Amino acid sequence: MKVGRVVGTVVSTINSPVFDYRKLLLCDLLGPDGEATGGYTIAVDAIDAGAGEMVLIIDEGNGARQIVGQDPAPIRAVVVGVVDEMTVDGAAVIAPGT
Amino acid sequence: MKVGRVVGTVVSTINSPVFDYRKLLLCDLLGPDGEATGGYTIAVDAIDAGAGEMVLIIDEGNGARQIVGQDPAPIRAVVVGVVDEMTVDGAAVIAPGT
Amino acid sequence: MKVGRVVGTVVSTINSPVFDYRKLLLCDLLGPDGEATGGYTIAVDAIDAGAGEMVLIIDEGNGARQIVGQDPAPIRAVVVGVVDEMTVDGAAVIAPGT
Amino acid sequence: MKVGRVVGTVVSTINSPVFDYRKLLLCDLLGPDGEATGGYTIAVDAIDAGAGEMVLIIDEGNGARQIVGQDPAPIRAVVVGVVDEMTVDGAAVIAPGT
Amino acid sequence: MKVGRVVGTVVSTINSPVFDYRKLLLCDLLGPDGEATGGYTIAVDAIDAGAGEMVLIIDEGNGARQIVGQDPAPIRAVVVGVVDEMTVDGAAVIAPGT
Repeated sequence: MKVGRVVGTVVSTINSPVFDYRKLLLCDLLGPDGEATGGYTIAVDAIDAGAGEMVLIIDEGNGARQIVGQDPAPIRAVVVGVVDEMTVDGAAVIAPGT
Repeated sequence: MKVGRVVGTVVSTINSPVFDYRKLLLCDLLGPDGEATGGYTIAVDAIDAGAGEMVLIIDEGNGARQIVGQDPAPIRAVVVGVVDEMTVDGAAVIAPGT
Repeated sequence: MKVGRVVGTVVSTINSPVFDYRKLLLCDLLGPDGEATGGYTIAVDAIDAGAGEMVLIIDEGNGARQIVGQDPAPIRAVVVGVVDEMTVDGAAVIAPGT
Repeated sequence: MKVGRVVGTVVSTINSPVFDYRKLLLCDLLGPDGEATGGYTIAVDAIDAGAGEMVLIIDEGNGARQIVGQDPAPIRAVVVGVVDEMTVDGAAVIAPGT
Repeated sequence: MKVGRVVGTVVSTINSPVFDYRKLLLCDLLGPDGEATGGYTIAVDAIDAGAGEMVLIIDEGNGARQIVGQDPAPIRAVVVGVVDEMTVDGAAVIAPGT
């Protein structure tokens, strides 16, 4: 899994019901220091995440289908949770309530 | 998923019916700024996309087979939708009608 | 999928019948300009491709097994077709008959 | 598989029982010299690993689900073992008891 | 598939029977010139390969499970064969008997 920050949305008409009521979030990928790495992914929103939030992203098809509860579904990357806290070497990179 | 721009086509005789009536699109991969990243992929066209269009690409075998409605099928990357709008940090990177 | 050029072969005794009558091709990966990118892959030959030919490579296990018609089979990358033509921005990068 | 060093933890509320009693470990990926490569992954802890430990990480969905004994489960990377010893060219890069 | 050179071993106690009688080999990945690329992988040994040997590595979960004949098994990369010969542009990069 990767940690990302929601920076935008993508609107596209896709012929599959899994996309009917779900947003596509454009997420910058973050490194262990909480800074953007330069990479990004577009992930299906499974938790109603908002712009600027730090989120956990799983990028695997079978897991993605289980999270959204639809199989078959042509998805691979899904935002599965908001990151409440991330600690590296004992220091908070992402602190609760921020 | 990734956002790409259709820049070309590939013609190849492949011994599998899933390719019989579908184009292979050569797509530049785009970053969150809408600019080409230098990477590319060759994806099966599921939506009759045209040259120059901004498209969404899913790169996962099981999802690809579901989108085209054929299983088994030896495919992995599929163009699944035209990007109507992409917004980053509140600004339109790809605007509707462009 | 990726476009590659067949540059060599690999000979290895592997304890699985899927390799008994199939060559392993060493393929340089090509960019949209038709030039080598520096990457390579070793793929099972499903079409009797020859040295120097431009080929399409699929790199996904389930699709690979379907192309060769053997499941189970411990393979992932397969040469699935010769590229007859590749066009980028309206110009032929790989032209028919070359 | 990759060797990593546990450097932190990630706390996130995820709506899937597989995460209820398991930590998410932030792991630096290590090269064959035992030094950090700059990459990282966030993996589900299957062995109760501690901060600073050298661990083996498998990054494949089906294998991950088998290790934790839950299927379906939306996971892909799992810490599967502590590295007791790693030897390269006959020399110990990671020695037992360190 | 990739070509690698066995450069070391990894010892780790993993709670899955597939690892009970199999070594974990640390393999440098090689380019088409037979030289190390800087990348590496840790693969399950399916052929009793020795240090210094040039080997073929498959990195796909389902194929890996088929080679070792155990399913389920939490593995992804497996050493499937010794490379007897590798030829690039008509010249032997790896020659038989070396």
